[in-house]
Amino acid sequence: MADFPSTFETLVDAFASLPGIGTKSAQRLAFHVLSLPVEEADAFARAITDARHSVCRCRVCQNLTDREECPVCADPGRDHSTVCVVADPRDVAALERSREYRGVYHVLHGVISPMNRVGPDDLTIRQLIERVDSDEIHEVILATNPDTEGETTARYLGRMLKPFGVKVTRLAYGIPVGGNLEFADDATLMRALEGRREL
Amino acid sequence: MADFPSTFETLVDAFASLPGIGTKSAQRLAFHVLSLPVEEADAFARAITDARHSVCRCRVCQNLTDREECPVCADPGRDHSTVCVVADPRDVAALERSREYRGVYHVLHGVISPMNRVGPDDLTIRQLIERVDSDEIHEVILATNPDTEGETTARYLGRMLKPFGVKVTRLAYGIPVGGNLEFADDATLMRALEGRREL
Repeated sequence: MADFPSTFETLVDAFASLPGIGTKSAQRLAFHVLSLPVEEADAFARAITDARHSVCRCRVCQNLTDREECPVCADPGRDHSTVCVVADPRDVAALERSREYRGVYHVLHGVISPMNRVGPDDLTIRQLIERVDSDEIHEVILATNPDTEGETTARYLGRMLKPFGVKVTRLAYGIPVGGNLEFADDATLMRALEGRREL
Repeated sequence: MADFPSTFETLVDAFASLPGIGTKSAQRLAFHVLSLPVEEADAFARAITDARHSVCRCRVCQNLTDREECPVCADPGRDHSTVCVVADPRDVAALERSREYRGVYHVLHGVISPMNRVGPDDLTIRQLIERVDSDEIHEVILATNPDTEGETTARYLGRMLKPFGVKVTRLAYGIPVGGNLEFADDATLMRALEGRREL
């Protein structure tokens, strides 16, 4: 872009490097930053460094936290013998919102995906095995998404965990509550039929 | 969101405060920042503070620059007696891309908009009047967008500038009504410059 100061261009490039932000949007965001009061711009920059430097992974469940152990793992009121395995910290937040689950979590930070060159060693599977091996864990609930990669990861984990004699379950997949049979896709209907339970 | 570290929440809020970024997108961007190498996250933060602190307004034309005078105003090869008045630094960049215009600019940093509580005093109109009053300026080209607010601003400027005996023209031909200067193609911009009319 002609005649914009280089520091401005650097900021546009920084925004454009974010996922889902194109050049035009990046420019709009950079102009917005320039229009902010200096203190707000500085606070924005500080939010980035603070988050990046303070947020680490819980040493037990690998969820994001700013302590050694996340609030869920540190809570003695939770059922530490049940571990729900999810791909992403956002999944923990979603399950916590339901207020139904009282066990603890394990965050894989991804799913096995040969397409994206993500193998088992890139995830926190080793830490999960260690937990199952050393702690008093009775059940591992595999709650990866019901897509190809999520299924592959769940099957892989099932195979890995079986030798430890732990109960391994998979989250039920079917027609969502409030959903409509008529509009459900074939795969969902198939899963709903497969997972039918006796009343 | 339950159980995310507070520094992470602060970062999500910072992203969500940007124009056009919703909560879901903000969260995605914050996760992206956490996944960056520490140096890259720090560089991003630095890009924000650097841009905000170094970029100022050219003392002549009020365009964004990191010097006292922007490259256009400092260029003796430009026609300093013709001033093109635009609403936004992006409009300068768009006109420069056309390589047709050899005069200088004046950036208003907005348009008169009672709806958004922007009045003439919120723009750089006082500086424009001072320029016209003191410098050797023969023509002022009003190049605000051809929408209601742009037209209002052009008419207001026309009235303000007439007493100084300067030739006041309006950018015309080519830019579709309701269109946006920033997204106009080079040919359209060239036609608009060629066909400018005296107010």
